[in-house]
Amino acid sequence: MGKCTIFRGMIIVARKGVTAQELDSIRERVERLGLRTHLSIGESRTIIGCIGEESRLRSVPLLSIPGVDSVHPVMRPWKLAGRDFAADPTTRIQVGPHLFGGSACLVAAGPCSVEGEEMMMETGRAVAGDGAALLRGGAFKPRTSPYSFDGLKEEGLRILARVREETGLPVVTEVLDPRDAELIAGYVDMLQIGTRNMQNFALLREVGQLQRPVLLKRGMSATLKDLLLAAEYVMSKGNMQVVLCERGIRTFGTEMRNTFDLAAIPWLKQETHLPVVADPSHAGGRRDLVAPLSFAAVAAGADGLIVEVHPDPGNALSDGDQSLAFAGFTALMRDLGAFAEAAGRKL
Amino acid sequence: MGKCTIFRGMIIVARKGVTAQELDSIRERVERLGLRTHLSIGESRTIIGCIGEESRLRSVPLLSIPGVDSVHPVMRPWKLAGRDFAADPTTRIQVGPHLFGGSACLVAAGPCSVEGEEMMMETGRAVAGDGAALLRGGAFKPRTSPYSFDGLKEEGLRILARVREETGLPVVTEVLDPRDAELIAGYVDMLQIGTRNMQNFALLREVGQLQRPVLLKRGMSATLKDLLLAAEYVMSKGNMQVVLCERGIRTFGTEMRNTFDLAAIPWLKQETHLPVVADPSHAGGRRDLVAPLSFAAVAAGADGLIVEVHPDPGNALSDGDQSLAFAGFTALMRDLGAFAEAAGRKL
Amino acid sequence: MGKCTIFRGMIIVARKGVTAQELDSIRERVERLGLRTHLSIGESRTIIGCIGEESRLRSVPLLSIPGVDSVHPVMRPWKLAGRDFAADPTTRIQVGPHLFGGSACLVAAGPCSVEGEEMMMETGRAVAGDGAALLRGGAFKPRTSPYSFDGLKEEGLRILARVREETGLPVVTEVLDPRDAELIAGYVDMLQIGTRNMQNFALLREVGQLQRPVLLKRGMSATLKDLLLAAEYVMSKGNMQVVLCERGIRTFGTEMRNTFDLAAIPWLKQETHLPVVADPSHAGGRRDLVAPLSFAAVAAGADGLIVEVHPDPGNALSDGDQSLAFAGFTALMRDLGAFAEAAGRKL
Amino acid sequence: MGKCTIFRGMIIVARKGVTAQELDSIRERVERLGLRTHLSIGESRTIIGCIGEESRLRSVPLLSIPGVDSVHPVMRPWKLAGRDFAADPTTRIQVGPHLFGGSACLVAAGPCSVEGEEMMMETGRAVAGDGAALLRGGAFKPRTSPYSFDGLKEEGLRILARVREETGLPVVTEVLDPRDAELIAGYVDMLQIGTRNMQNFALLREVGQLQRPVLLKRGMSATLKDLLLAAEYVMSKGNMQVVLCERGIRTFGTEMRNTFDLAAIPWLKQETHLPVVADPSHAGGRRDLVAPLSFAAVAAGADGLIVEVHPDPGNALSDGDQSLAFAGFTALMRDLGAFAEAAGRKL
Repeated sequence: MGKCTIFRGMIIVARKGVTAQELDSIRERVERLGLRTHLSIGESRTIIGCIGEESRLRSVPLLSIPGVDSVHPVMRPWKLAGRDFAADPTTRIQVGPHLFGGSACLVAAGPCSVEGEEMMMETGRAVAGDGAALLRGGAFKPRTSPYSFDGLKEEGLRILARVREETGLPVVTEVLDPRDAELIAGYVDMLQIGTRNMQNFALLREVGQLQRPVLLKRGMSATLKDLLLAAEYVMSKGNMQVVLCERGIRTFGTEMRNTFDLAAIPWLKQETHLPVVADPSHAGGRRDLVAPLSFAAVAAGADGLIVEVHPDPGNALSDGDQSLAFAGFTALMRDLGAFAEAAGRKL
Repeated sequence: MGKCTIFRGMIIVARKGVTAQELDSIRERVERLGLRTHLSIGESRTIIGCIGEESRLRSVPLLSIPGVDSVHPVMRPWKLAGRDFAADPTTRIQVGPHLFGGSACLVAAGPCSVEGEEMMMETGRAVAGDGAALLRGGAFKPRTSPYSFDGLKEEGLRILARVREETGLPVVTEVLDPRDAELIAGYVDMLQIGTRNMQNFALLREVGQLQRPVLLKRGMSATLKDLLLAAEYVMSKGNMQVVLCERGIRTFGTEMRNTFDLAAIPWLKQETHLPVVADPSHAGGRRDLVAPLSFAAVAAGADGLIVEVHPDPGNALSDGDQSLAFAGFTALMRDLGAFAEAAGRKL
Repeated sequence: MGKCTIFRGMIIVARKGVTAQELDSIRERVERLGLRTHLSIGESRTIIGCIGEESRLRSVPLLSIPGVDSVHPVMRPWKLAGRDFAADPTTRIQVGPHLFGGSACLVAAGPCSVEGEEMMMETGRAVAGDGAALLRGGAFKPRTSPYSFDGLKEEGLRILARVREETGLPVVTEVLDPRDAELIAGYVDMLQIGTRNMQNFALLREVGQLQRPVLLKRGMSATLKDLLLAAEYVMSKGNMQVVLCERGIRTFGTEMRNTFDLAAIPWLKQETHLPVVADPSHAGGRRDLVAPLSFAAVAAGADGLIVEVHPDPGNALSDGDQSLAFAGFTALMRDLGAFAEAAGRKL
Repeated sequence: MGKCTIFRGMIIVARKGVTAQELDSIRERVERLGLRTHLSIGESRTIIGCIGEESRLRSVPLLSIPGVDSVHPVMRPWKLAGRDFAADPTTRIQVGPHLFGGSACLVAAGPCSVEGEEMMMETGRAVAGDGAALLRGGAFKPRTSPYSFDGLKEEGLRILARVREETGLPVVTEVLDPRDAELIAGYVDMLQIGTRNMQNFALLREVGQLQRPVLLKRGMSATLKDLLLAAEYVMSKGNMQVVLCERGIRTFGTEMRNTFDLAAIPWLKQETHLPVVADPSHAGGRRDLVAPLSFAAVAAGADGLIVEVHPDPGNALSDGDQSLAFAGFTALMRDLGAFAEAAGRKL
């Protein structure tokens, strides 16, 4: 048995004014050799990404195919996730009526756990009124101890769906088990992969086969390369709708729950075309840090935030210390505007 | 909906000379209240561990039940995994003809990946000849990149089974996906949960329902508390046969693949009755460190080792840099004896 | 010999409208018992901090002394550095014509090393023109290798003094050796304690005896508690003019030079009255990250920045990769304004 | 002003049977060019290490000088500390009657702080009786808080000297301030550089100018490269007697005081000729871990240990939790012998 292929991938940049027919025939030519192609049409350029056994391309005079302007190998270990692989600096990913990766800063808000319909409905109305773009809430909860509350399961999904109907907010929730992925995708608008599952490759492949946007949270000791390769797992199965999330890493620090690796945001914006959001609630683990971390994330270029909000944080079933009450969320959204504007975004 | 139960568990120590009938009736009394019990008969004492809604026990005059000597609450977050929960300091776990947790130091050896039948057969014979107790080899491989070789799957399992038949070595292999767990358990003697899946709770629960010993590797940024709670997940589903494995953690260090947290071994030996082994191959990531790290692990009290051995490390499909060639493994086993003896163990 | 005193300290809050005479007599009363006092007069309250053998205070009816409103013990391990110890949330520290800790966001700029007079003069003029408040530059350089360039020493100090004369910029430079502290303090306006010396207690005590503001950089694996206790060393010797600096910590991350612990900024702002600045150059170690990290630091509440700027970064003797060229600094200062304004500050 | 010299160093291996005269003339030839030389005569080979502006050597036909066998550039950033720079795998360093780096495993024992003469005398006698080779004890103590006990200073040194006189044990103590180095060197046999001062370059240079062996403890977030470069600082000033000490690093782990980086020991033994010892007391921070960590360190190849022992750990002024009582030290020394023997050493 041979050594692993060190796989590089290839990018074909199309000539300005390339026609749809030309694009089709370029892709057909590449796919005939057993490679997969991905078309990315941006504001100023068009790109055909090629994934597969690149050595087969060597025999093809690619530059002489009509519509081809130039051809570039992809040197990084991530291909589909790499910034060069897309025509625009940031890919737009639609969730409900909103676009991640555009000029808006999208805020997802809601409790750690879906604890019941009333509290979810109340939260949904409150955060919608303050300008949140999505509702978050866990129906299947990963817990460090097997004896902790682990969520309402499908009943939680039904609650999320009813709150969406009522408030118009698209809904994001976590999936833990590949066997639940399809069920969950039937209820919600965006699937979250949690920090403990960032390298659960069976799960990544499963959500890669669904056509639902994925919110991929960074593992607590994952390098940024690991994160991009996890995104690559999802994308390599065909689902290109991945939003990355910095949520703090595990370091020697003891004063806060995690260490918010803010610099990950601009680093990722340079390396990938995928939108990047931040989770200031888990990053700091303290309610009073949520606002300054949110301001900083947006100042550093984040495409959005995911914030824990609970009607009564002192009695939350999980993560109460880091959840904002409604008044705190209202204040956050009010103050965030100036930073979003300084960063050239609308809230 | 109420707050989470903070669950404490309870240990009933039986009187010396307790009869089987008395034990039965103690357990029955506890189980009638809706709690689960676990009986542990050790060399010098017998313990009935109780898991469930402990408040129900308060109404029962436990100390007046015949055969009961004393009753102790379990204060640590882990219950079944805690050292107090077992009658002996280390629980013995049988894998093939061998016992983890006894006076022997068990060595599992073999390649990172099952690459083919011939290389596995050759490796199995070699390591068996040097005194290895188990054969290791991955049929389903977790890989950071979706483009890396990820194993021979069921064909790999069949190869492992054939090598076991030939060499008599019981076999340990990794399970990545809960949907594969039963299939894999049908072929092998011990199921490995890898470092990236230590908090894959769906997978932990799945192997908790099988009656196969589990080798649970520490997550690369897991605290020791996290590790014991992961073991608790498996045990809380009924599978008490868990062996813990220290394999190095992720730190700021750059000279080695991981930082071998040797002190985890004696720490765990004090907190849990589960056997503890070390993986010197992943810990250092370098062939020339395998021997000194093995000596140290055994000196610090490890119940065994898991070592990567390959017929031709320079051409291994994965982890070649840290794999011993046969001669290296022979030397390791030869030199390890003196350290095992100093630690009061047989190799 | 007795056990260590667990030292707690005490804060006396003065009554509104307290007179100078009353304050004097409160302090005299406390000092007569062998304790030291520190007076802090803020916008809305006046505080007398007491440091020393607090048990002696127990015999004194403090609340009946005229001018005393209330008395509070200090529970944190840091006393003088604690937020309660000062009358205002942030203490103002004057460096040249500027105040750290006021409504301005002060930017110190300049090269890592003072390499010669011409390059310093050129840099000083450039950064002054863009609105920098201070000039930075190392004359005594800590280097990981004994064979690296370690600074121009006193000649570097003379150059700094000449650039100050020319540009009006106050100057900050690092002190490495307690024997050099007084010499350096004779030339410059602010003494920097570098990351490798944050727990060089001999050096901290030495600068604590000088009346020069101190820029105290966080150690690369220092907790925030360690940082505040290092400040306490300086302050306990009488020098209360300490500015803290977050400059990135050492973690498992490999993509950047350090991990910028942005959340340290708002955490410190809550725990201490000392001003807090950030060093985006060392934090990321990459020129292209300086701007986003600067925006984020200011958004999170930083009182200032310290930025590496070099006339020709490609040929810098040290830290060239993370130094901005003049044009980069001009752009940074231009774009930073909007974030400072959003944070309620002037640049 | 030019770029930094990237300094490489050069090793001249002498011909078998080289004469003293030939060695002299080789050294003279190199030194005449402004380089420094260091002669290392080992059991099977003789080496002349050259440090300085290596480009000057290019004009010299080194291989034609009588007595020269071969010439090798040193590629690593450390030169004098590199394994190639010495004729033997481990350099022997004499402290009192003992040799670090020989076939013995040397144990230094004693309290964290010198608290008084009686307790030191008692400790010295006890540990000498159990086979300790050196006495340790801090007279100048680095403390995280300025309000903690920081040592008896010169009185502590006088006590150490008196215990040495009485017990015959050579003494090691920490130096914190370059201004104290000479004073301390006048009293003790070995100077310790503590973990917080590993990159206190002023202090390293100072002890580099004294002719006292140095025990250099690894910084709590120092890479092994940093540690070797810190040794290089001392050696580059002329003091070649450096013993390295692994004492645990700072990681995310919370269960123990530090993370004992055991693999550092064999890694260092391959990269440097300097002896390597371990500090199991600080590494684990817990009395009950001292023995297993000691066994492991010796099994992994350590040349010695430094262990905290106190007559009454429960009342120690510092580090009581990790100090052994006399009985514990007796047991440690008794059990250590078998591991030392397995590692080919005498205790």
